[in-house]
Amino acid sequence: MAMRTLIPFDATDPKTRLSSLFAPDERRELAAVMLGDVLDAVRAAGGDPLVVATGDVDIDAPVAVDDRPLSDAVNARLDPDTAVVMADLALATPRALRALFAASGDVVLAPGLGGGTNALVVRDDDFGVDYHGASYRDHLRNAAAAGCSIREFDATRLALDVDERADLADVLLRGEGRTPGWLRDAGVALATDGGRTSVTRKR
Amino acid sequence: MAMRTLIPFDATDPKTRLSSLFAPDERRELAAVMLGDVLDAVRAAGGDPLVVATGDVDIDAPVAVDDRPLSDAVNARLDPDTAVVMADLALATPRALRALFAASGDVVLAPGLGGGTNALVVRDDDFGVDYHGASYRDHLRNAAAAGCSIREFDATRLALDVDERADLADVLLRGEGRTPGWLRDAGVALATDGGRTSVTRKR
Repeated sequence: MAMRTLIPFDATDPKTRLSSLFAPDERRELAAVMLGDVLDAVRAAGGDPLVVATGDVDIDAPVAVDDRPLSDAVNARLDPDTAVVMADLALATPRALRALFAASGDVVLAPGLGGGTNALVVRDDDFGVDYHGASYRDHLRNAAAAGCSIREFDATRLALDVDERADLADVLLRGEGRTPGWLRDAGVALATDGGRTSVTRKR
Repeated sequence: MAMRTLIPFDATDPKTRLSSLFAPDERRELAAVMLGDVLDAVRAAGGDPLVVATGDVDIDAPVAVDDRPLSDAVNARLDPDTAVVMADLALATPRALRALFAASGDVVLAPGLGGGTNALVVRDDDFGVDYHGASYRDHLRNAAAAGCSIREFDATRLALDVDERADLADVLLRGEGRTPGWLRDAGVALATDGGRTSVTRKR
């Protein structure tokens, strides 16, 4: 059976930490392109996606508009055997998501860089999400408190959510969907100052 | 047989991008603590470590001092069936390294964030390393040009090398060795500004 997969999406003012690179309409377009890549990967991995958006989205997928805070909007739809995958995982591949969906555990948690929870699978009614800055440890704790068996799912392709300028370098280097091309068309290119690679933008 | 594992180490002026947080002697101490964690993980994973250092290091492991550029110092010791693991992979676990060592392929490459190559296994004489900012794609290309079979090894626990302030947040959140304690003793603590978690330091 296809894994029901919620994909939360900020349709309003996404990717604010990329404001130095992109105008608001460009940030919305980039967010939609990344969402499209995630949708493709989810479907190719055997997932049945539902975009849970803060507002209208023009995308080829079922969309539920819900203006409640993220955690409430997700928990309202978190039946057992549901996955949640963030819309900005521009490195996510069908392979990584297939492995996530197949991982055993009442709660399967894929950590993001900086302590967030980028993807998860829930198979137990007693677990709910509580997204905030460093949600990962709290999700581990809550799952344990609910008596759930827990699987930590460690994959860079799910760990990197696109928030900061440096994240775009990883997308250019390793992205497999349409996002790298969108970035290149927007003039974004790799830049190395001798340390970790980042990006610059030529307009 | 134990996997021969080279661990390059900057004994001179490590972790310069953490200069806003740590004095030079503290940076050297932090680098040594992380090296110790990597050594422990390598040994627990069945590796036989050799630290390839730019200068003297006071650590409980075999050390070869070599002041040539990193790539030359590594290539001089890159016999077949050799792994190379960076000394600043503070999230590396025995489990992740065991899987790396066991992965098949003439060349097994573990990408780092920002396009670097954080760990690899070489089983073919014709492959050599060439470290620089975004070495990963070049390593893929060189391995293909040398006719090697290639395995990409994707694991956050090997992808995160500690370079930047934000990386310390991941160490505090998920590190399993002595580095998180060293950081806490130095006054480093998680800080969230609503986005990805970073750190602050109280002195």
